[in-house]
Amino acid sequence: MSTDEQQIRDLVATWMRATKAGDIDTVLDLMTEDVIFLVVGRDPMVGRAAFASSARPKSGQAPQFDGTSDIQEVVVSGDVAWMWTRLRVVVTPPGGQPPFTRAGTTLSVLRKEGGRWRIARDANLLTTVAPPAG
Amino acid sequence: MSTDEQQIRDLVATWMRATKAGDIDTVLDLMTEDVIFLVVGRDPMVGRAAFASSARPKSGQAPQFDGTSDIQEVVVSGDVAWMWTRLRVVVTPPGGQPPFTRAGTTLSVLRKEGGRWRIARDANLLTTVAPPAG
Repeated sequence: MSTDEQQIRDLVATWMRATKAGDIDTVLDLMTEDVIFLVVGRDPMVGRAAFASSARPKSGQAPQFDGTSDIQEVVVSGDVAWMWTRLRVVVTPPGGQPPFTRAGTTLSVLRKEGGRWRIARDANLLTTVAPPAG
Repeated sequence: MSTDEQQIRDLVATWMRATKAGDIDTVLDLMTEDVIFLVVGRDPMVGRAAFASSARPKSGQAPQFDGTSDIQEVVVSGDVAWMWTRLRVVVTPPGGQPPFTRAGTTLSVLRKEGGRWRIARDANLLTTVAPPAG
């Protein structure tokens, strides 16, 4: 496995771990300034600042996320790479509401900036697969 | 606009036109042999042959597709490119069933093979936005 591919796999592991820990600063450092997130049924989220706003709600607590990413492919071409994964996330809403599971695939484009890989474009095809328990 | 970007925009125009005309051979020629289509709520479709099977149902007629692709971004990096679009497709099922509309975004990775751009990976985030009429 190339060093680039290993760095990208490490990025995914860090992303999942930091997301679970609610460590937003670490997650933000894994994406480019101009990142764009495409999601199902909503407008794209454009820019790191938009992600930060979404991850830090003005009022109340944020939901908790505990996910498992199964990387299917990483292809590096110069300072650009793409990756697709099968992703499964258990979302626990704040306020004692029951958790639910979202699952599906993702397709990401990454760029190498100053020797570090970051996610630049991300399509998240997850849908809710298990209804809230209880 | 670079020649590469123009070729990619032409590819999209050809794709939409050929899809509308039911010209499957032309559409197949616009994707790589190892193409992977990620879709919402279904398993990925892997390979040009899988696309061909899906587009040519063994029994009965195929649905008709009439779409409009609004390209938001094309970025070329050597022999790799990525693109995202806003896509709207009116699907007309066979057998006189009423048409319905699917809309959303797409993220695609393209490769240049022998001087020609082809779609290699495609995430289709479309969902049905208008219920069947009538």
